[in-house]
Amino acid sequence: MSNGQKTAVVPATHTAPPAKFSHGVRKGNLLQVAGQVGFLPAVEGRAPTPAGPGLREQTLQTLANVQAVLEAGGATWEDVIMIRVYLTDTAHFAELNEIYNEFFAPLVDVPAARTTVYVGLPAGLLIEIDALAVLG
Amino acid sequence: MSNGQKTAVVPATHTAPPAKFSHGVRKGNLLQVAGQVGFLPAVEGRAPTPAGPGLREQTLQTLANVQAVLEAGGATWEDVIMIRVYLTDTAHFAELNEIYNEFFAPLVDVPAARTTVYVGLPAGLLIEIDALAVLG
Amino acid sequence: MSNGQKTAVVPATHTAPPAKFSHGVRKGNLLQVAGQVGFLPAVEGRAPTPAGPGLREQTLQTLANVQAVLEAGGATWEDVIMIRVYLTDTAHFAELNEIYNEFFAPLVDVPAARTTVYVGLPAGLLIEIDALAVLG
Repeated sequence: MSNGQKTAVVPATHTAPPAKFSHGVRKGNLLQVAGQVGFLPAVEGRAPTPAGPGLREQTLQTLANVQAVLEAGGATWEDVIMIRVYLTDTAHFAELNEIYNEFFAPLVDVPAARTTVYVGLPAGLLIEIDALAVLG
Repeated sequence: MSNGQKTAVVPATHTAPPAKFSHGVRKGNLLQVAGQVGFLPAVEGRAPTPAGPGLREQTLQTLANVQAVLEAGGATWEDVIMIRVYLTDTAHFAELNEIYNEFFAPLVDVPAARTTVYVGLPAGLLIEIDALAVLG
Repeated sequence: MSNGQKTAVVPATHTAPPAKFSHGVRKGNLLQVAGQVGFLPAVEGRAPTPAGPGLREQTLQTLANVQAVLEAGGATWEDVIMIRVYLTDTAHFAELNEIYNEFFAPLVDVPAARTTVYVGLPAGLLIEIDALAVLG
């Protein structure tokens, strides 16, 4: 089996990556979504701006940004096998799970695996999420 | 090649995930194990309780929890290509490696790759581990 | 399709892993590179020593170490779909991106996805990087 070409997945709504990486990459049957944060859809001439003011808005925007990459790559949440959640504050765990469960309530297939850890992120960012999907 | 169905891997011994995610997911030839911590086997009516009192007990329980997911998914440690270890204290590195080496001494095949970083975890947890296996 | 054997990828230049893990593992069409740090090529009888004195030197050595594993496994950066960058200081983000962009300027194919988070690392280490490649 050939794995075919490596293709970049670039949603129109996304701000340009701050370095030479792709928001998503597809090769073979894998679609890897880069770490997404809660930046609002890109506006020409405006610096990347996170949704706000709280964890809820940033988390939903972050999930929307992951979803935009999945969709641009021909995948849906149903194809995702792993979601990595990076929070900045252990006090956010319960609220994150509440938001997460609401967001994924419509999921038909089994939910993805998940790892949640607490890290540092650039000022103003409360959460980062990446995802790995298997297509086909 | 079809990648077949996405299936949840749910060991009977595990406490329910605190949110809508699966302890393990298999799709195609990949088995992804979610971040496991050192919770003792679930007991009806008891809150999830980590093994203790020290790093050794928690690490061995965490590895046992990863292994339970692997086995429930039809895999063994021999199939694992990547292990991510999240510690909370750089002072634990030497002891972690000692425990890790003892645990994996029986491994016949080549050991998995590993990334170890130091993060925050909820109170009482000293270590979290996830794993990616390739089957077949 | 058989995924074939799991093989360890061991660059001659690398210091021995501090525990029972492989610097790289290949199984099926996946090549997983373990978390690499900026250790200089191994010298018999010398403890692992990071390149220095600054972020630039350590980052370039870390990337060289990832590349050595890729090459020993029959892959190149062009095959990489995901790069995980672990920094220790959010103040390093801009400089990291500058170094990263210079390093990947020769890339012909689309760049890999990337997740960057800020964690703790053992004393003296400023950065750790791992990578996942899809071959074929």
